[in-house]
Amino acid sequence: MPRVSEAHLAARRQQILDAAVRCFVRKGFHQTSMQDVIKEADLSVGAFYRYFKSKNELITAIAGDKISQVTSVLDELLAAEPPPAVPEIIERVLELIDRSVEEDGPVRIAVQVWGEAVHDPEVGALVADVYGRVRSRAVQIAERAQAGGQLHPDADPVGVGVALFGLIQGYILQRILLGNVDRKQYVNGVRALVTG
Amino acid sequence: MPRVSEAHLAARRQQILDAAVRCFVRKGFHQTSMQDVIKEADLSVGAFYRYFKSKNELITAIAGDKISQVTSVLDELLAAEPPPAVPEIIERVLELIDRSVEEDGPVRIAVQVWGEAVHDPEVGALVADVYGRVRSRAVQIAERAQAGGQLHPDADPVGVGVALFGLIQGYILQRILLGNVDRKQYVNGVRALVTG
Repeated sequence: MPRVSEAHLAARRQQILDAAVRCFVRKGFHQTSMQDVIKEADLSVGAFYRYFKSKNELITAIAGDKISQVTSVLDELLAAEPPPAVPEIIERVLELIDRSVEEDGPVRIAVQVWGEAVHDPEVGALVADVYGRVRSRAVQIAERAQAGGQLHPDADPVGVGVALFGLIQGYILQRILLGNVDRKQYVNGVRALVTG
Repeated sequence: MPRVSEAHLAARRQQILDAAVRCFVRKGFHQTSMQDVIKEADLSVGAFYRYFKSKNELITAIAGDKISQVTSVLDELLAAEPPPAVPEIIERVLELIDRSVEEDGPVRIAVQVWGEAVHDPEVGALVADVYGRVRSRAVQIAERAQAGGQLHPDADPVGVGVALFGLIQGYILQRILLGNVDRKQYVNGVRALVTG
């Protein structure tokens, strides 16, 4: 039997996740069956289940991959010298969101996953975990902004971090639900608030 | 046949909506059947369907009532003289959200409705309508803050409005999904961003 390469496994995994995203965006997370995803991925049932056993496993993988992208951009911004201004950081994250909305759609699923998290404890724990990771970086951004004189020395960096995280989530919601929000306009709004 | 009073009709309608909220919070919007709501409301099928014909009608009524509360608070703040500072306005809205999360739960449903809106055009149109109403007030708040000298004369009030609306939505999400966000801390974060 030929040895299956790592690259092959990763490609197959990605093929499944892409198919799952398309199904979830089209029919909704709840209304999509595993059968739908298997068909969309064009795989045999046996091949499919070697990778993922449930819709929650699919969602966990999709959310994990996406959040890794976000946290690596944030880590890059956190390492940049001098520290970028807070509105610039927001802009970079919103660019990432826009790209995801336009190209592949996982952000559309994020909003559905939030809805599931309200009453499914397993999804709730997943969301709390991944967002906890993003939020802790938002707090670090605030700490760094404060150290660099962008924020008052008495400001609470945790409060600023959660507000920054809120600005990002609010953008996602408006982008997905209302459609008519413009990134530049939003960032300019944040800039106007921050600079007075 | 005795004449049914307006008050009776309103009370019955509210009884149904309260039951629907409890069901949606407990089981999720999608997993709740009309039968579940009828049972929870303790009404006959015939009596029930005189008020609401579908889950989407229930959600529309729940969202409409809740958003009316929010817009009336915003209208009050928009009429106040002198104009309250922007962080004070945010705080008032977040108080309303916290009360809803603690007491009756419709905010928990909001997050589910957002998830439904992604793939159900009817729910999508509802959400776009009600949030459009809140967002237009957020823009008015920004215009007023600008007229009162709280914002730079060159700032774009639409951009500021959408960012303020984003801050409110971000709070809802963190409150529902992560649980561990504190209103005072969040408002202090907004204040620190706004005052620098």
